[in-house]
Amino acid sequence: MEHQEYTIEGRNAVTEALRSGKPIDRLFILDGCQDGPVSTIKREARKKDVLIKYVTRERLDQLSETGKHQGVIAFAAAYEYARMEDIFALADKKGELPFVILLDNLEDPHNLGAILRTANLAGAHGVIIPKNRAVGLTASVARISAGAINYTPVVRVTNLAQTIEELKKKGLWFVCADMEGTLMYDLNLTGPIGLVIGNEGEGVGRLVREHCDMTAAIPMKGDIDSLNAAVAAGVLSYEIVRQRLSGK
Amino acid sequence: MEHQEYTIEGRNAVTEALRSGKPIDRLFILDGCQDGPVSTIKREARKKDVLIKYVTRERLDQLSETGKHQGVIAFAAAYEYARMEDIFALADKKGELPFVILLDNLEDPHNLGAILRTANLAGAHGVIIPKNRAVGLTASVARISAGAINYTPVVRVTNLAQTIEELKKKGLWFVCADMEGTLMYDLNLTGPIGLVIGNEGEGVGRLVREHCDMTAAIPMKGDIDSLNAAVAAGVLSYEIVRQRLSGK
Repeated sequence: MEHQEYTIEGRNAVTEALRSGKPIDRLFILDGCQDGPVSTIKREARKKDVLIKYVTRERLDQLSETGKHQGVIAFAAAYEYARMEDIFALADKKGELPFVILLDNLEDPHNLGAILRTANLAGAHGVIIPKNRAVGLTASVARISAGAINYTPVVRVTNLAQTIEELKKKGLWFVCADMEGTLMYDLNLTGPIGLVIGNEGEGVGRLVREHCDMTAAIPMKGDIDSLNAAVAAGVLSYEIVRQRLSGK
Repeated sequence: MEHQEYTIEGRNAVTEALRSGKPIDRLFILDGCQDGPVSTIKREARKKDVLIKYVTRERLDQLSETGKHQGVIAFAAAYEYARMEDIFALADKKGELPFVILLDNLEDPHNLGAILRTANLAGAHGVIIPKNRAVGLTASVARISAGAINYTPVVRVTNLAQTIEELKKKGLWFVCADMEGTLMYDLNLTGPIGLVIGNEGEGVGRLVREHCDMTAAIPMKGDIDSLNAAVAAGVLSYEIVRQRLSGK
């Protein structure tokens, strides 16, 4: 697995990368910077729905590898995304019913990396993430995934709700993680399945939730609101594993 | 919940804090710094088994709140640790068999924070961590725990293996997470229980493992070596919840 950070630094380089359609995961811009070239970068980034973070000069200096960032640093996907066919080919090859994990706007690289590990070890055939406003396959996600990124296909899609509808036509059932749902032990999760995990703060979005067939709740015996997103994904993925193993 | 960072900065302040026995979670020292006062700090820190990290001046400047760190910054526990009795009192109050989670030298604050959330929601009555060479209740762990730190007792102990022996006398059975173990579904985890989770890199240490009664494995259907520690803790905790709910 490669660890090298893949940054694009400086105004021209970042503008060109955005215009060429290169997949940019995150864009860091010096807070308060308002001049022409930076405004152009912001406009191009918004067109492509790239997540912009406004940061201090100290933070930029720290992120910079070249020392010549001119107030803008973009992080490009260090790893290649897979195609949807790769997921189904993997399930076919293993002779298993498809099991995919869909992440609705996850923001934290620790969570994405940990979920890739879980997907790999729970035998999911792929992970689907939205193209915009979500963390992608950055170098730190790759590192945190402990190698899973090299085995488990990760597909980026434009519209998660639309993807769900397309995959339903291939026979998948979608189960959405939500504490208001049916206790997970009471659902049948043994068929071809898509498990939808929500954003750290807000859970699964309303639109995506409405496209799901079932809502699964993890038993909550405590005082706080919710599990960490990666832990919730782990507990639900392993409920799927358990049901498939026991042939429920 | 309070979020403020609790740092102790500067040579005198850090030396005094160490000598007074104040619980220090981590100590950052400027890499290459060899003078008298810093050597004294290193010696005191080693006596107290405090985790020392050698870092660059840039990193220290970034961690510093006062801007006057003189090459040393210590992080003190921002939150109070509980007593062992608090764990058993909580189990008693809820009328449940004790369920505690023991962490063998966990290093990552993200993992500790996520495990505190899991402990709270899976209904564990407390978390036990070693005093030395492990991440403690820092302000960032508190933040990541999403409030769980205010409800679930966290106890620090000097010697985990010794604590296991003491708790066995109170009737607890200890199960250690290890991929070489018995498949978790084949173990009876419904009694008074201590779940032992290992360090991120090395798993549960040999000595601690030898004091456990059972070894539980999560099914592994993939290519990589292990789940993230917080995810593994979540999956095993919820297997305990499932078995207790189903009265296995």
